[in-house]
Amino acid sequence: MAETRSIEHFLTEVKTTVDARLADYITSKRAEAERISKDSAELVDGVAAITLRGGKRFRPIVLSAAYRAVNAEGSLDDTIAAGVALELLQSFLLIHDDWMDQDEERRGGPAVHVIYRNGYADRHIADSLGILAGDLASTYAWELMLDAPFPATRREQGLRRFVELQKEVYLGQHLDVTANADVARMHDLKTGSYTVRGPLLLGAILGDASAQAMDALVAYGDPLGRAFQLRDDLLGTFGDKATTGKPAGNDIRAGKRNSLMDAFERRVPEAERGAYTKAFGRAHASDVQIAAAAELLVESGARAEVEQKLSTLRDAAVAKLDVPHFNPEGRALLTGIADMLVVRSA
Amino acid sequence: MAETRSIEHFLTEVKTTVDARLADYITSKRAEAERISKDSAELVDGVAAITLRGGKRFRPIVLSAAYRAVNAEGSLDDTIAAGVALELLQSFLLIHDDWMDQDEERRGGPAVHVIYRNGYADRHIADSLGILAGDLASTYAWELMLDAPFPATRREQGLRRFVELQKEVYLGQHLDVTANADVARMHDLKTGSYTVRGPLLLGAILGDASAQAMDALVAYGDPLGRAFQLRDDLLGTFGDKATTGKPAGNDIRAGKRNSLMDAFERRVPEAERGAYTKAFGRAHASDVQIAAAAELLVESGARAEVEQKLSTLRDAAVAKLDVPHFNPEGRALLTGIADMLVVRSA
Repeated sequence: MAETRSIEHFLTEVKTTVDARLADYITSKRAEAERISKDSAELVDGVAAITLRGGKRFRPIVLSAAYRAVNAEGSLDDTIAAGVALELLQSFLLIHDDWMDQDEERRGGPAVHVIYRNGYADRHIADSLGILAGDLASTYAWELMLDAPFPATRREQGLRRFVELQKEVYLGQHLDVTANADVARMHDLKTGSYTVRGPLLLGAILGDASAQAMDALVAYGDPLGRAFQLRDDLLGTFGDKATTGKPAGNDIRAGKRNSLMDAFERRVPEAERGAYTKAFGRAHASDVQIAAAAELLVESGARAEVEQKLSTLRDAAVAKLDVPHFNPEGRALLTGIADMLVVRSA
Repeated sequence: MAETRSIEHFLTEVKTTVDARLADYITSKRAEAERISKDSAELVDGVAAITLRGGKRFRPIVLSAAYRAVNAEGSLDDTIAAGVALELLQSFLLIHDDWMDQDEERRGGPAVHVIYRNGYADRHIADSLGILAGDLASTYAWELMLDAPFPATRREQGLRRFVELQKEVYLGQHLDVTANADVARMHDLKTGSYTVRGPLLLGAILGDASAQAMDALVAYGDPLGRAFQLRDDLLGTFGDKATTGKPAGNDIRAGKRNSLMDAFERRVPEAERGAYTKAFGRAHASDVQIAAAAELLVESGARAEVEQKLSTLRDAAVAKLDVPHFNPEGRALLTGIADMLVVRSA
């Protein structure tokens, strides 16, 4: 019980501090932009909208936990500075991705390019401002990394990891945009690297981890990244809009192939997929049609299959923590984080 | 004569070295991308196309000259590493700008989003790949800056300057995209900061310049940046496609307001602007109509007025070099560079 409370406390502390720091940072950036070019401050407003609308702050949490796991004495406050940079990187990637995917909603509000469409009748101008706001968020992420209070050599190692993480995300996004058949690689690059492996390694670098501790974190992060993706796949169909910020059955309507659809199609011959076929990839399917297709995914056992796989991956991740490179508090934190990432509703 | 030869030699040496380094870097990045995600290497190809098509390499030249002017003993080879980073930053900005401006040509070949349109029938997918290729080029620029062989503290100062420069460019681009009336500020942010002031300060930082030398470089860079923009304005109408890579009369056809158009409209009452009015902002104006409008810009004295202003600004810039903070070789180089930036045909 004490352990659970301490994990809850850690999660809340990181999230609260990240939220507060983000608000302060954005306020200072808006003032800075107004000094440089008053009319252009609306570019900061796009960054602010997506950043402050409240994210789950997973990446700062993962980063801080890895840092703590290898460096029990390290200041949580310092590591949060790098976590805030990851959140701006996330804002940048979400802004560009939403435009590329033509997603109109994010975190329960309009996507950034959609915000600009409300202000500019010319759609291309609005889209251009969206891309520019993303570019600006990316530069902010770098600025925050440069300001993270670590010894210069560790900070530079961290910046190099930042570079690797970005390259992987872009290549993964390329596979996504071009609907490449290698969905597993796409997920590894977009989610595994960026949500789990990247933040773990960044935290480890800033915490001055040994090479063995880094290897152990990668071993823990690999199944965890895949489990995270499976949870995303489930939420894409069974998630509640109030918590995910996206319409229920979103992936069915969008015709998004993922582990759930794969499991279903393996289990049910084409001739028997009735309601699923009527709704999958049909942008104008009704809510009733979407619900019927989702029901089929449950009845066929596809949902249970993915849940089972997810649980196995979570256990495999946690098993990798049983090595001497982590302190006990850190091991408990990383276990708690595995649960947070896979047992979630948003 | 000896001085002119030495400047020519410097310009050639920097350009040749930058070209060779860029080719090597891109080759290594393509191999790296293939290891991470073979199919995604086409993203590197977009970056390669615009980067290796041959630019004028102004920014590395400016950076290296500033570095030399404050540090006669410094290795030109080291400073070129940072110059190569500026070229990748330039690739990133050109890729995104061309898409925002819907420019189809760049450096005498197709813009990057246009290259992808040749491979993907879906225009939005092609545009998305263009944006992604720009994002990748930006990360490459950071990687190159991180690898520039300077003491860590100077490199970090350089990275911070990199951040400031990017923020200014985005805010300037915002003014451009939204057709803001403050054209002077737009040019200062897009051209002054990014082509002249930014590279000068980066070179000075890496060369460990004194605060006085930095101030002197800013004083020199300010009129020079404005002169550079005036030359750009002239080339936008009177430039030769073979050297500028853009169609002659491009700015007239595009209806781009700049110093030349302003001078003309100040000199000629609206009722007497015949051929100009027929061609300005008309995308389908014929080459003959464009030539007639350009002729009016000459006859009215608008062209001569801009040339005169440009020459005055060039002299004002060079006058600022007459301070004790620069070594004689560096002073000669910076004078040569002022001439290169304002007396150019591309």
